[in-house]
Amino acid sequence: MSTLSQLLDANTRNAESFDLGRLSHVPARKLAVVACMDTRLNVEEMLALRPGEAHIIRNAGGIVTDDVLRSLIISHKLLGTQEFVVINHTQCGMTTFRDEELQARLHEETGADASDVRFHAFSDLEGNLRAQVERIKTSPFLKDVASVHGLVYQVEDGRLRTVV
Amino acid sequence: MSTLSQLLDANTRNAESFDLGRLSHVPARKLAVVACMDTRLNVEEMLALRPGEAHIIRNAGGIVTDDVLRSLIISHKLLGTQEFVVINHTQCGMTTFRDEELQARLHEETGADASDVRFHAFSDLEGNLRAQVERIKTSPFLKDVASVHGLVYQVEDGRLRTVV
Repeated sequence: MSTLSQLLDANTRNAESFDLGRLSHVPARKLAVVACMDTRLNVEEMLALRPGEAHIIRNAGGIVTDDVLRSLIISHKLLGTQEFVVINHTQCGMTTFRDEELQARLHEETGADASDVRFHAFSDLEGNLRAQVERIKTSPFLKDVASVHGLVYQVEDGRLRTVV
Repeated sequence: MSTLSQLLDANTRNAESFDLGRLSHVPARKLAVVACMDTRLNVEEMLALRPGEAHIIRNAGGIVTDDVLRSLIISHKLLGTQEFVVINHTQCGMTTFRDEELQARLHEETGADASDVRFHAFSDLEGNLRAQVERIKTSPFLKDVASVHGLVYQVEDGRLRTVV
């Protein structure tokens, strides 16, 4: 059975007990979380968040790119979130390569120029996290957000520690 | 108690039964999912995905922006994913405004120029989904991905339907 068929089968089974059809689209806890796409992270589970409580934004690294700022502006201005939490994590794949290496590999493998694709690889976990929080705090469109915190998730023991 | 304290307390409780410290960072099902940040969506739950199985990428709308392409290239080239699923959903907040309206509001409220911030609001759900899948398929760096599908998640009944 293909992966898609497996996913759709699982969805059909889960949907039989679905009872959240009347949930509001406004996050009840006025919270937005930015985290890495890493397969070991289950953001809802690690924070005990239930459907209806928060926006979850995820990308490679938990980087506050322009796209994340776009999502946060929509979250804050149109859907009323007031608290942002950025989560980076130990053993992140983004610390295992350099942008230039991946750009060169893409060019070799495809012939297409990848020199303008910024991948946001990093080496200093806490420094990277501080920079992401700073990007939010310096956005002219997010100045009235109540709080922005930066946490490190430890994939070794499932615990979060506060850095910012 | 502040939201942050509540989240950290919940994490401390959950971490007591944590037993995934040896999970690989390579997604076991070679799968990456792109979905909306909407508070009603629990991607892992709707697809019955467990930690260790897939990359989860989320932003406002489930839009395949340059940042999502960045994440997918890392997912595919460095961590071996071969199947991508893009999920848009019914009642999406992205269908309730126009980019120009939000740009104008931001300028009024902050004085800063927001005319170059593209928010990716849309009106046609299935058309938007097809365009996102197409953006992946036309990336020169993702040509050898095995499959790319587009699904609509119905927030009313928790069911997914295949569009692409």
